[in-house]
Amino acid sequence: MAQTLSIASCYDSLAHIKPHLDATSTTLKPANAISFRRGLSSISFGKQEDLFGCSKLVSLSFFERQCSRRNVGKFSPRAVAVKEKEVKTTSPAMEEGGKGKKVMVVGGDGYCGWATALHLSNRGYQVAIVDSLVRRLFDQQLGLDSLTPIVSIQKRIKRWKQVSGKQLDLFVGDVCDFDFLAEAFKSFEPGAVVHFGEQRSAPFSMIDRGRAVYTQHNNVIGTMNVLFAIKEFCPECHLVKLGTMGEYGTPNIDIEEGYITITHNGRTDTLPYPKQASSFYHLSKVHDSHNIAFTCKAWGLRATDLNQGVVYGVITPETAEHEELINRLDYDGVFGTALNRFCVQAAVGHPLTVYGKGGQTRGYLDIRDTVQCVEIAIANPANPGEFRVFNQFTEQFSVNDLAKTVIKAGEKLGLEVRTINVPNPRVEAEEHYYNAKHTKLIELGLQPHFLSDALLDSLLNFAMRYSDRVDMAQIMPAVSWKKIGVKPRSSASEVKF
Amino acid sequence: MAQTLSIASCYDSLAHIKPHLDATSTTLKPANAISFRRGLSSISFGKQEDLFGCSKLVSLSFFERQCSRRNVGKFSPRAVAVKEKEVKTTSPAMEEGGKGKKVMVVGGDGYCGWATALHLSNRGYQVAIVDSLVRRLFDQQLGLDSLTPIVSIQKRIKRWKQVSGKQLDLFVGDVCDFDFLAEAFKSFEPGAVVHFGEQRSAPFSMIDRGRAVYTQHNNVIGTMNVLFAIKEFCPECHLVKLGTMGEYGTPNIDIEEGYITITHNGRTDTLPYPKQASSFYHLSKVHDSHNIAFTCKAWGLRATDLNQGVVYGVITPETAEHEELINRLDYDGVFGTALNRFCVQAAVGHPLTVYGKGGQTRGYLDIRDTVQCVEIAIANPANPGEFRVFNQFTEQFSVNDLAKTVIKAGEKLGLEVRTINVPNPRVEAEEHYYNAKHTKLIELGLQPHFLSDALLDSLLNFAMRYSDRVDMAQIMPAVSWKKIGVKPRSSASEVKF
Repeated sequence: MAQTLSIASCYDSLAHIKPHLDATSTTLKPANAISFRRGLSSISFGKQEDLFGCSKLVSLSFFERQCSRRNVGKFSPRAVAVKEKEVKTTSPAMEEGGKGKKVMVVGGDGYCGWATALHLSNRGYQVAIVDSLVRRLFDQQLGLDSLTPIVSIQKRIKRWKQVSGKQLDLFVGDVCDFDFLAEAFKSFEPGAVVHFGEQRSAPFSMIDRGRAVYTQHNNVIGTMNVLFAIKEFCPECHLVKLGTMGEYGTPNIDIEEGYITITHNGRTDTLPYPKQASSFYHLSKVHDSHNIAFTCKAWGLRATDLNQGVVYGVITPETAEHEELINRLDYDGVFGTALNRFCVQAAVGHPLTVYGKGGQTRGYLDIRDTVQCVEIAIANPANPGEFRVFNQFTEQFSVNDLAKTVIKAGEKLGLEVRTINVPNPRVEAEEHYYNAKHTKLIELGLQPHFLSDALLDSLLNFAMRYSDRVDMAQIMPAVSWKKIGVKPRSSASEVKF
Repeated sequence: MAQTLSIASCYDSLAHIKPHLDATSTTLKPANAISFRRGLSSISFGKQEDLFGCSKLVSLSFFERQCSRRNVGKFSPRAVAVKEKEVKTTSPAMEEGGKGKKVMVVGGDGYCGWATALHLSNRGYQVAIVDSLVRRLFDQQLGLDSLTPIVSIQKRIKRWKQVSGKQLDLFVGDVCDFDFLAEAFKSFEPGAVVHFGEQRSAPFSMIDRGRAVYTQHNNVIGTMNVLFAIKEFCPECHLVKLGTMGEYGTPNIDIEEGYITITHNGRTDTLPYPKQASSFYHLSKVHDSHNIAFTCKAWGLRATDLNQGVVYGVITPETAEHEELINRLDYDGVFGTALNRFCVQAAVGHPLTVYGKGGQTRGYLDIRDTVQCVEIAIANPANPGEFRVFNQFTEQFSVNDLAKTVIKAGEKLGLEVRTINVPNPRVEAEEHYYNAKHTKLIELGLQPHFLSDALLDSLLNFAMRYSDRVDMAQIMPAVSWKKIGVKPRSSASEVKF
């Protein structure tokens, strides 16, 4: 048993895995050890449902090819048979799995959307992806690229069918085009809509006036259209909307989940938590939240706003099944978020770029928890007329905390990691109080993946594996909150400051 | 002196006027009395600066023509000479008047915008109107019309020049078109921008999906463009933005002016007051407020958000100077607001349409206070980086309060006024706590015009005078909050419910 190690070791320590394996796994013979360059000491395969929350085995063909292509290790494939088993969870609704319930994933080609679409498909939901694919265009226009090589959405879907036997429906179009969206709704008749289909980068929204306006138009009008489509075509449909913890800003009091009870001049009411967003992107999510709350009240729609923290990680069980299912990983100054970016920087020997004093504290979560949270929300829908808000993160870190953690993890892999404090391109408090509640998803059964040495090891290894794809010129912060202007900026080099 | 009565009697009682006349007026000979049909017993002319806050006399030519055209009374014009004198005010900044300071009035052809543009021009500001004139198109498209006949913006401006000797600059175009707006900014170089240039009807925003989307796009993107234009071309420019008291909704605690200090779990912070808007229009103003607050913080812009209550009245001193300067007055179910609509209903013998239980309480103000508040805000600008919020209203009334007041005023004029409770087309609390603060503008020198019998008399008379222009079919509530759909509604008859 000591040698039976799941591919989940990419993310989790042996100590974390062993109890699960001991308690629930079909015993597997140990796989041959594989040594990756400068990294993870061993990888093999086994049952991983208790870690990844899905019932399928990780296919090693992808990693095998990666290893072979890069000459970083030897690999012995092995056929493994395991009985299908549903994920364990404390939520009765989730124990039933998707059971064919129809879920539309708007923005299903993106970083969180793709992982979620596969996860839900794997869990037995009937999934349709609605996506304009414009995220891919942004990369083209700015000369950026995912660290990981991603294939077309059509190839992704074809590969998923081949790997899992499950079909993802695809509607390519823009939710700002209501005629298109209406056809998608009428054709697919979703029972739930997960809405990731927004421009999701704060720096992108601060590049120039055009992109600021694009971001607010795209996000606000797109969401209005989704609300109207639900009202018109599927009024019972549950909207699961991705918001952001950034809607709250950094108030000097505890952040609650969506609402706060205020006693004022002797009277008391529970009101929406005050919003202090700090980019046109974050503001667009604030606008969405207000619009959605109104439609729940006025039309009786049911909605869950997932105020998500900063997501890190790249592998989910499903995306790991084949190289054509791999998720995107952004490390550039526009789309890259803190921890992912730090790992790529560490992997290529670039100093970790700490913006300003580095005391900026935020909520973070593993992408495996993103997909879990969305499923929990779907499986436990809001009531008609209810606008429910969950704070979707598992731990709080300051930027300095993250940098220290990456430095420590890098040392173990023999990487010499240092930090540089770069002028903060954003306008934000760099030292502040931060204490945000996040209990509602836990109460519904979320089993968090906390940031661990193993996760950092695997992320760093992942970054090292693709280090020849890193464009060093894209690493530095590219967009200044103060210097945004009205002149269109047409290339990445123009957005440097 | 007893017979010397300002044209301000259109709005104010003798008791209100006399002390001012006794104390400050050049004594004038009494004018011949004029009897209006079914109404106001006498009207003459005199000095009216203490009531209207402007230094010019009301020209009687307009009223003369109205009387003559409608055969409602005899009229004897009289030349009156008065020395020019600045308005009295408690604000030192205002005592200096406009002194040629350049103010851009976006939406300067609308109900509040036109009155404001003339008032500021009269007070010595150099005023440019920026307007797409789309409000006139809305009337055409929905088959609606102002109770009062309004002439083209070009004729209005020409007439103002002839009457006052003062030039209004005009830029006809859409603030959503940034190239147009940029040219207007570069050409005019405003020191302050008053932004009324938004779709301002809640029912309009709830007609159909297209108009909901139009409202949010137009208002949010237009305001973003104004913010970018200020940042780019006139960073010292003070933005005076018209918001609405409707941003706050009807919380069960006192409403503060923009911000509320919250003590929570032993810590205290002052945060934006929570927003609970209840139409896509009101929501668009919430979005604006958040966007503007951000730009003040990030870019150091200076802005004042005037959270205005429901405006009533039609005459300001300047709009009364000539019939071609008359303001619009909306009484229809889409653009008509509570008190104005009630007066028109009373004048034509239509029951007052109380929506639901009629306990809906809001803040109200006279349009003469709207123009005064805007001038106060301009004369006392926000500091760089400051996002200042004033609640702009003078009194609170429930719908039932208003109905009772109109019934009482109607009785005095021999009108038999009754009410009907119609199903509430909106989704809103019909009985609720409401106590909103509104001290900041008072502290800066606002001298409120409270709702008076005289004002109601004059509004009712005004409505009676134009009663042959009333389209009875437009009076009933036209738009249902719950029944809004995705199908475009192309005529007023289609928006009935």
